[in-house]
Amino acid sequence: MNYCSQCGAPVSLKIPVDDNRERYVCDHCGYVHYQNPNNVCGAILTLEDRILLCKRAIEPRYGKWTLPAGFMENNETVAEAAAREAMEEANARAGPLTLFGIFSMPYISQVYLMFHGELASPEVSAGQESLEVGLFRRDEIPWDELAFPVVDHSLRLYLEHGAGKVHHAWFSRGPDRQVELHIID
Amino acid sequence: MNYCSQCGAPVSLKIPVDDNRERYVCDHCGYVHYQNPNNVCGAILTLEDRILLCKRAIEPRYGKWTLPAGFMENNETVAEAAAREAMEEANARAGPLTLFGIFSMPYISQVYLMFHGELASPEVSAGQESLEVGLFRRDEIPWDELAFPVVDHSLRLYLEHGAGKVHHAWFSRGPDRQVELHIID
Repeated sequence: MNYCSQCGAPVSLKIPVDDNRERYVCDHCGYVHYQNPNNVCGAILTLEDRILLCKRAIEPRYGKWTLPAGFMENNETVAEAAAREAMEEANARAGPLTLFGIFSMPYISQVYLMFHGELASPEVSAGQESLEVGLFRRDEIPWDELAFPVVDHSLRLYLEHGAGKVHHAWFSRGPDRQVELHIID
Repeated sequence: MNYCSQCGAPVSLKIPVDDNRERYVCDHCGYVHYQNPNNVCGAILTLEDRILLCKRAIEPRYGKWTLPAGFMENNETVAEAAAREAMEEANARAGPLTLFGIFSMPYISQVYLMFHGELASPEVSAGQESLEVGLFRRDEIPWDELAFPVVDHSLRLYLEHGAGKVHHAWFSRGPDRQVELHIID
């Protein structure tokens, strides 16, 4: 960032009084601009033995398959965010959602909050951010065409353990951009 | 916000193309400024049958007791954030942390992520944001002097159930500013 959101003057990176890390601080009015991680809320939505996946119509990972998920918005709960994303990406109505996993990605300052629920209706269709959507049985999942490591990990955990436990892990990314999984619980 | 963080020109609230809600968009360069919820990471840290609490030296709720907790920073995991806050507020070294609860507060666009762990050392002392810190037995907890409903709720859940389950709830706030708890799991 270059300019103050409050007064429009230039900002500088400095450590504010009573703080311990650099922030963008306005050179004119002193306003401190905090930057914090974003939550990505998503869901494993099932219809009997099938799992809802969406083929991405947007970058990054255009054309790859993902679980419905997206940035949490202000003034909603984590579960509302996951249900909203399912509706936006797959016109899918989620039943009650339970927490399935929390996955930190400090290298991109994101936290994935994944839920599990049953589809309240079998009718799903591609939303604006999806090329197509589908309900996949275990042996139909396109493992080599998944968009993100967290999607791969969530699907494997669900197929191995089912719902009922909350999984906790974090991902690191090395200088070779290879992503590594670290399981906590 | 009034000005663009990228070019310093005025911003207007409008719905960007391919979006469905109002954002602050730059009138000059078109940059879209997203605003999203913040995570507050904290911990119930125990030493045998005692729980660490901190008396706040900052507003809001100056002088009230709280669990160590604070805003998650970029480039850290949720558990690292909780451990860092314990160190900053109480000079407390946390042992391994397990997820204890996730509590959405949509009225202030915050998500509390509470952990449980044992203190790795009995030495604790007030950090910069605390007037004092203490280790409280069940019957010593200052229930009438707690800072926030989420602290009250977390302590009650821990004393009733112990650790081992991940609790999921959200809080609403009515026009009378009364906060109401909604338990999900």
